[in-house]
Amino acid sequence: MLRTGKDYLASLRDGRQIYIGDELVTDVTTHPAFRNAARSYASLFDFKRQNEAMSFEENGERYSFYYKQPKTVDDLLFRMKGHKLLADFSYGLLGRSPDHVSSFVTGMMLKPEIFDVPEQGFRANVEAYYQYLRENDLYVTYAVHPPAGAKNWSSDAKAHLFDSPSLQVVATDDSGVTIHGMKMLATGGAFVDEVWIGNLTPLAPGREKEAITCALPINTPGITLWSRKSMEAMAESVFDNPLSSRFDESDVMLICDHVKVPWNRVFTLGNVELSRSIYVDTAGHCFGNHQSNVRFWAKLQFILGLANKIAQSGGVRNIAAVQDTLGRLAAYEASLGAMIHGQVLAHEEIGDGYILPNRRYMYGTLNWCQENYAGLCTVVRELMGGSVFQMPANVSIRSDEKLSAIFEDFWSTETDSAIDRMKLYKLAWDMLGSEFASRHLQYENFYAGPSFVVRAYSMRTAPWAMFDAIVDDLMATYDTTTREPVAA
Amino acid sequence: MLRTGKDYLASLRDGRQIYIGDELVTDVTTHPAFRNAARSYASLFDFKRQNEAMSFEENGERYSFYYKQPKTVDDLLFRMKGHKLLADFSYGLLGRSPDHVSSFVTGMMLKPEIFDVPEQGFRANVEAYYQYLRENDLYVTYAVHPPAGAKNWSSDAKAHLFDSPSLQVVATDDSGVTIHGMKMLATGGAFVDEVWIGNLTPLAPGREKEAITCALPINTPGITLWSRKSMEAMAESVFDNPLSSRFDESDVMLICDHVKVPWNRVFTLGNVELSRSIYVDTAGHCFGNHQSNVRFWAKLQFILGLANKIAQSGGVRNIAAVQDTLGRLAAYEASLGAMIHGQVLAHEEIGDGYILPNRRYMYGTLNWCQENYAGLCTVVRELMGGSVFQMPANVSIRSDEKLSAIFEDFWSTETDSAIDRMKLYKLAWDMLGSEFASRHLQYENFYAGPSFVVRAYSMRTAPWAMFDAIVDDLMATYDTTTREPVAA
Amino acid sequence: MLRTGKDYLASLRDGRQIYIGDELVTDVTTHPAFRNAARSYASLFDFKRQNEAMSFEENGERYSFYYKQPKTVDDLLFRMKGHKLLADFSYGLLGRSPDHVSSFVTGMMLKPEIFDVPEQGFRANVEAYYQYLRENDLYVTYAVHPPAGAKNWSSDAKAHLFDSPSLQVVATDDSGVTIHGMKMLATGGAFVDEVWIGNLTPLAPGREKEAITCALPINTPGITLWSRKSMEAMAESVFDNPLSSRFDESDVMLICDHVKVPWNRVFTLGNVELSRSIYVDTAGHCFGNHQSNVRFWAKLQFILGLANKIAQSGGVRNIAAVQDTLGRLAAYEASLGAMIHGQVLAHEEIGDGYILPNRRYMYGTLNWCQENYAGLCTVVRELMGGSVFQMPANVSIRSDEKLSAIFEDFWSTETDSAIDRMKLYKLAWDMLGSEFASRHLQYENFYAGPSFVVRAYSMRTAPWAMFDAIVDDLMATYDTTTREPVAA
Amino acid sequence: MLRTGKDYLASLRDGRQIYIGDELVTDVTTHPAFRNAARSYASLFDFKRQNEAMSFEENGERYSFYYKQPKTVDDLLFRMKGHKLLADFSYGLLGRSPDHVSSFVTGMMLKPEIFDVPEQGFRANVEAYYQYLRENDLYVTYAVHPPAGAKNWSSDAKAHLFDSPSLQVVATDDSGVTIHGMKMLATGGAFVDEVWIGNLTPLAPGREKEAITCALPINTPGITLWSRKSMEAMAESVFDNPLSSRFDESDVMLICDHVKVPWNRVFTLGNVELSRSIYVDTAGHCFGNHQSNVRFWAKLQFILGLANKIAQSGGVRNIAAVQDTLGRLAAYEASLGAMIHGQVLAHEEIGDGYILPNRRYMYGTLNWCQENYAGLCTVVRELMGGSVFQMPANVSIRSDEKLSAIFEDFWSTETDSAIDRMKLYKLAWDMLGSEFASRHLQYENFYAGPSFVVRAYSMRTAPWAMFDAIVDDLMATYDTTTREPVAA
Repeated sequence: MLRTGKDYLASLRDGRQIYIGDELVTDVTTHPAFRNAARSYASLFDFKRQNEAMSFEENGERYSFYYKQPKTVDDLLFRMKGHKLLADFSYGLLGRSPDHVSSFVTGMMLKPEIFDVPEQGFRANVEAYYQYLRENDLYVTYAVHPPAGAKNWSSDAKAHLFDSPSLQVVATDDSGVTIHGMKMLATGGAFVDEVWIGNLTPLAPGREKEAITCALPINTPGITLWSRKSMEAMAESVFDNPLSSRFDESDVMLICDHVKVPWNRVFTLGNVELSRSIYVDTAGHCFGNHQSNVRFWAKLQFILGLANKIAQSGGVRNIAAVQDTLGRLAAYEASLGAMIHGQVLAHEEIGDGYILPNRRYMYGTLNWCQENYAGLCTVVRELMGGSVFQMPANVSIRSDEKLSAIFEDFWSTETDSAIDRMKLYKLAWDMLGSEFASRHLQYENFYAGPSFVVRAYSMRTAPWAMFDAIVDDLMATYDTTTREPVAA
Repeated sequence: MLRTGKDYLASLRDGRQIYIGDELVTDVTTHPAFRNAARSYASLFDFKRQNEAMSFEENGERYSFYYKQPKTVDDLLFRMKGHKLLADFSYGLLGRSPDHVSSFVTGMMLKPEIFDVPEQGFRANVEAYYQYLRENDLYVTYAVHPPAGAKNWSSDAKAHLFDSPSLQVVATDDSGVTIHGMKMLATGGAFVDEVWIGNLTPLAPGREKEAITCALPINTPGITLWSRKSMEAMAESVFDNPLSSRFDESDVMLICDHVKVPWNRVFTLGNVELSRSIYVDTAGHCFGNHQSNVRFWAKLQFILGLANKIAQSGGVRNIAAVQDTLGRLAAYEASLGAMIHGQVLAHEEIGDGYILPNRRYMYGTLNWCQENYAGLCTVVRELMGGSVFQMPANVSIRSDEKLSAIFEDFWSTETDSAIDRMKLYKLAWDMLGSEFASRHLQYENFYAGPSFVVRAYSMRTAPWAMFDAIVDDLMATYDTTTREPVAA
Repeated sequence: MLRTGKDYLASLRDGRQIYIGDELVTDVTTHPAFRNAARSYASLFDFKRQNEAMSFEENGERYSFYYKQPKTVDDLLFRMKGHKLLADFSYGLLGRSPDHVSSFVTGMMLKPEIFDVPEQGFRANVEAYYQYLRENDLYVTYAVHPPAGAKNWSSDAKAHLFDSPSLQVVATDDSGVTIHGMKMLATGGAFVDEVWIGNLTPLAPGREKEAITCALPINTPGITLWSRKSMEAMAESVFDNPLSSRFDESDVMLICDHVKVPWNRVFTLGNVELSRSIYVDTAGHCFGNHQSNVRFWAKLQFILGLANKIAQSGGVRNIAAVQDTLGRLAAYEASLGAMIHGQVLAHEEIGDGYILPNRRYMYGTLNWCQENYAGLCTVVRELMGGSVFQMPANVSIRSDEKLSAIFEDFWSTETDSAIDRMKLYKLAWDMLGSEFASRHLQYENFYAGPSFVVRAYSMRTAPWAMFDAIVDDLMATYDTTTREPVAA
Repeated sequence: MLRTGKDYLASLRDGRQIYIGDELVTDVTTHPAFRNAARSYASLFDFKRQNEAMSFEENGERYSFYYKQPKTVDDLLFRMKGHKLLADFSYGLLGRSPDHVSSFVTGMMLKPEIFDVPEQGFRANVEAYYQYLRENDLYVTYAVHPPAGAKNWSSDAKAHLFDSPSLQVVATDDSGVTIHGMKMLATGGAFVDEVWIGNLTPLAPGREKEAITCALPINTPGITLWSRKSMEAMAESVFDNPLSSRFDESDVMLICDHVKVPWNRVFTLGNVELSRSIYVDTAGHCFGNHQSNVRFWAKLQFILGLANKIAQSGGVRNIAAVQDTLGRLAAYEASLGAMIHGQVLAHEEIGDGYILPNRRYMYGTLNWCQENYAGLCTVVRELMGGSVFQMPANVSIRSDEKLSAIFEDFWSTETDSAIDRMKLYKLAWDMLGSEFASRHLQYENFYAGPSFVVRAYSMRTAPWAMFDAIVDDLMATYDTTTREPVAA
């Protein structure tokens, strides 16, 4: 069943509790900090429903593309193109869109036997959860990292009620487990149906209480979400902030105050290793980050469009240095497209006929995205120059006839009207210069962890023995007595 | 005479006309978009008045340090230290602070004979203006570039009332000249006493009508200022935006609607070359950009403090990679300090016993600042990681006792209280991530022109013949017949 | 027919004329500047002959893989893997290996109708040439750029015998055309069977005389090759220079002194546009540079092996910073592998059922290789540190028993013998620090043209209209009157 | 007394023992691996003797400038200019020129009381040594690091005769101490009078036996030097390698086989902390690295000359992108000049009226040099393009009349003769592409330690408390209750 946007919107009014500062928001569909983004998600559900390429049929029922369990290159391409369509819808601005965490869960389904650890893993539960998600076309986020300060608590610090603010199991009984504490960072949390709670950050031995993986409806009693500043609320108008005003996906801290998790929603329990390996030893992490790669690609294409139009608007597109800059941007976009396709062609097998994108290639791409985002933005900002600050503060200028006339007289160029220039620069600034843009810069640099974490994935998965062998084999072809002439 | 902050504030209520969108602001001391910044400037005047190192005595009167005409290394050091104190006051955030344009004017005074071009240059006027500024301790900004689109107007475009929106002379009579049109970008314009109008961007021959240099009180009838979005207005509170809320210097477009300039305020007229050379062939450009170098230095020191405190707060300061990062930041700060001192020691003479900082070294420093600002900010943002988005939306959280308690319980670390962490991260974000920060990034990359313009100053002033001679002399020591052994 | 190494070596003794300085070399199989490289090529022919994956069967005959005209993804993969095996053989050090220019020619065969320009294009000739090359398993290089200074000759410079030193047609008769002049840079020229002469650098209108494309045996009378310094000749021993001593492919200038080209070897004549478009409007340029991408990949894998072994040898592989460096190198290698695979999956059609790697992705990859080579080498050099200069000057140290003993006592580490360390560092230095390495650095940065030329390929092939449309469509969703709340 | 070059050359024939591979060299003035460099040093002594600005008078005697103990800015400028003149002589290519280690020793003389540690420090000896050096105008190098592998020896490894190959004290008696083992890397060792042995790399507690600082004549019995490959020996001719052939300063490993050090040459003994602090807690390290900064400056100016002449020769100097590149190079050169002057103006006091360059600024400059050398070379290599490989292998081409004529006809450009072009490109390649150039690249990146070591100096000396205070003071100006409007 594919949901309509209308149904989705209705379902958001479920009593979820979100704090912005000291203000409690319970209906995100009407609150100025969230209402437009909520509508964007609703439109996205309609868009997906209307676009055949974004769902597949199984047993007479249609499911969203990201629940597809791939066995062929065409299956992987189907997923890839689905992610691309979905990301294009929001210009790559919704990082934790509905296909992200659901791809993690689907990836786990390619190797569900990893959960077969008695009393600590619950395979049937996670399989049922996967079915539940896809049957109901649900949107799920995750909160899988301890809060930043948590790791600073020494074991004997007694200043607080508990030894770490990080979410942990505080009680267990026949009906389930009780969890208490905080997890970061449930991006999209204001707009989801469900939250997956777990540990993508490795847990140290001894922290078994934190080693719970489970999932809950976002409106579960005891759950509160603490939101960062809303960029949507800060937007002056759609014209002035066409992106912040409509695509702020929200970042929220998840606080659970003695929340009861029924057993059928518990996936792993008390096993620090398992609580991490379910992501990286299945296709979960790979599927989720493949989606990120594709989403980044959509964003990059949008940025190229901005760069090209800014160059045109400024009348500098034919200057050699600008051509060179655009050529470099185009080369980068092509590199990324190539990397994503390459992951698919050089796919890996994971058993039972299932395949997944090449993990090393995906991690290489992830590193590429992280290394290049800031620089790409800087290049386009340099194309913008100081033009943005020459524009009036906001579009209200148009409401005054006299000001409007002056504006057109003085700000027009030979090729563009003043209002068209303003529209373009406001959009570009919202993408590259606004606080919304700034949050995206931070997001691209940290959503998969700091750079050393991202590179560590590449380190761990690289075939070092193969690389070493190249050198060893070469060195085996000569010794200290070799005299010329010799062949290779 | 050194003004008090109180006098300064009072003088701002002079009827100046500033548009923010379609809203007309006439009193910046009370308007939420400007009132705090106005107070910051007022405090700055008091600070300067109370600090002996920031003024000098001449003929029994005290003058602000930036009016000092230097003849010795000590004079240059006096100016340098004055700039540093003034920049420290605002953490380097007021780019066009009172010492910037006044330094340009003072720099011209070291070689006023450049104005001695009959009927096109008005030396006595500019000398009198310099005296007037320093006697009355005035704050002056400039608007010395054509609007971005202006250059796109071909000579035969007829769509507008005039052939270019760029400010130009439209009439001349016995009492003065009449100017009409737009100039960008009068940074600080909301808070100044005076605006200097001119052409730092070279004018093409044939554009003599634009080749006017003059100065006017900012409240002159016919002058309107069109402001970009106010960051101060967007600030949630001082706690949440301690910098945006108090140090937004404003960027405004200057529009002159048939404004009359009396003859004694005209400095150059109808000479395209002279209208540019008065900056770069005197000490003007050098003094003004030396100030920029010093201001950047103050900002960088502030950023180093943030970096160090963030590393401490995150408990990572002793990690090798973080030490390396801090070491690099410290090396950069020291490099900049060295460059600024080096300009002073390797000073140049300009005649009549006057000296100025080494121009080439100053341009080299300017290029260094421009090349490194984005990267320096990125490094510190990486130290911040995702922590900032884990903080509550704003300080209102403290108004609610229950939320406040939860906040302290969950967000504190062993070394820092939750509120202290929030205070630090909000400050760091305001410096590095907010829209205010983003405007600063654009500012540092463009206030002296795009990078190719900044590098062109170095190109033009470099001693290429000397560099060539090194190679030529070397090549003269050998020819094709040289046989070993040989000496160097 | 696939040649044996023995046959190949024998064929090199054909009287070709190569100058090194003023020394004329006529037998590269015995001359100390070339003999080892000649043997390396011979081994390569044997290797290719013995490896089934490097050839294909057609009409009962086996042909080298690079003559395959691809119609399916598997065909493209077959070519890609062939290139990889061939490049692995020489660690990516033979840039213009036998598969490079032959791939250009094969690429032209996918669209031979481009030669159908009466009297200026000779389709039958080039088709016959393709058959001739593959039947006889020949090795062909090209010389397709004017000498560097040629472009500086103004049309009326009379100081020389001819108006430009660049190769041109000086006579035509029934038996063929006569060419005279110089072309750069016939890399591999000392070891090839044939040289393809043409114009990859665009020719200006009016230079029709230079617009000849043809091919000749390298020993054609009148052809002389002027070689740069031989790195093989400089190698102290195989141990001290295991790469320079065996893999110096040579770079030679091609000088034709009134050389007669028979008509059947003329491919284009007197058409400046056609002389360039045969590369970029067919699959030629794409095939040839796809090979370059793959060859770079082999080299990069070799460099990763070196990096890893250096880190191990230095006992620093477990240090966090070194892990991070290795992780980054691994991410880069994976990115490149992904890009190459992506070119294949996202292939393009060119008519008649033929396909080729995605051009944009290939150009993106080419730019990536060029942008990253110097930095990758620098990283590995930094891992080496000063160790290489602590090693004895050369392996002769082993000939002296007493010195050898001292060497083992003082230079060994707990894990590695002195001689093993020396072997590794000498190899690494030959790859990254020797003059041979330095030539490779220059080669990687210029074999496809300077960086602006490489980026121009991306600029020209990018779908700018598609990128623009993303922005246009977005801007079409709102206007100045839009009032919130709104959907995306 | 200032030595003549002739005296210097004569003194080199003192029986010093240098191995190149298994060849023992005892007279560097005649051996093809060293003779030209020896003559270059001799010329340098004459140059210094003839140039008044390079020596000073004291008590009627003239001493080399680097023995000057500075008390005024003029003294520091005198030293700085002396270093510059000396570095200009060799285009910055002699890294450990006579002013390097002597500056270390002179720097120690500003605070000799650091040696006042009974039985472990020998102040009178080092003072006498300083007098001895300057009286006799001696050239001294140092060997102050353990061999690379030494640190890998665990304390219980028994495979060798001694527990570490690193040089250590093996016996002590009335006449002195006996040392045995290896030190790296006595750059210039083939050409010096004396070698200073010590520990700039910090020693771990427990390694007291290695904690000896002393100095010996280079021809002391038992000392052998093991040289790396000689670039001078590899040079084809002065024309083809104008720099390698004359400015290869040598890098040698120092091996002491039970060498006796008389007590008057022992400076510290058995004190691991003192053996390091004599460099960094006196002016020693600062003086020595200030010299390095200045030497790098000379090299950079030479590189700018090359860049400019290459641009001219290639006919591209007026292209905008090339202008931008040259402008950047000029900005960098100016930045470095500024930093060096800044060290002098912002000098520090060290007691007894002595001053030294600002240490932080010097370390910042050192980091700048290390960070930028590779990139600067890359930029100029890019200006060179592939031109260098189009040149004949070597100048022997000129010996053949016919070849010479062809060369002039084909390789000349409208502005430059073929031989002039070849001369320039051979020189540029020797500076940027030859193995000599490659050794310089490694040298600039490692002579002061790997980059993290260089940055650690900046980390340790930075005023973190001052930086923190900027932030603390700012945060003290507001709290959570602050209500607008407020002043800064």
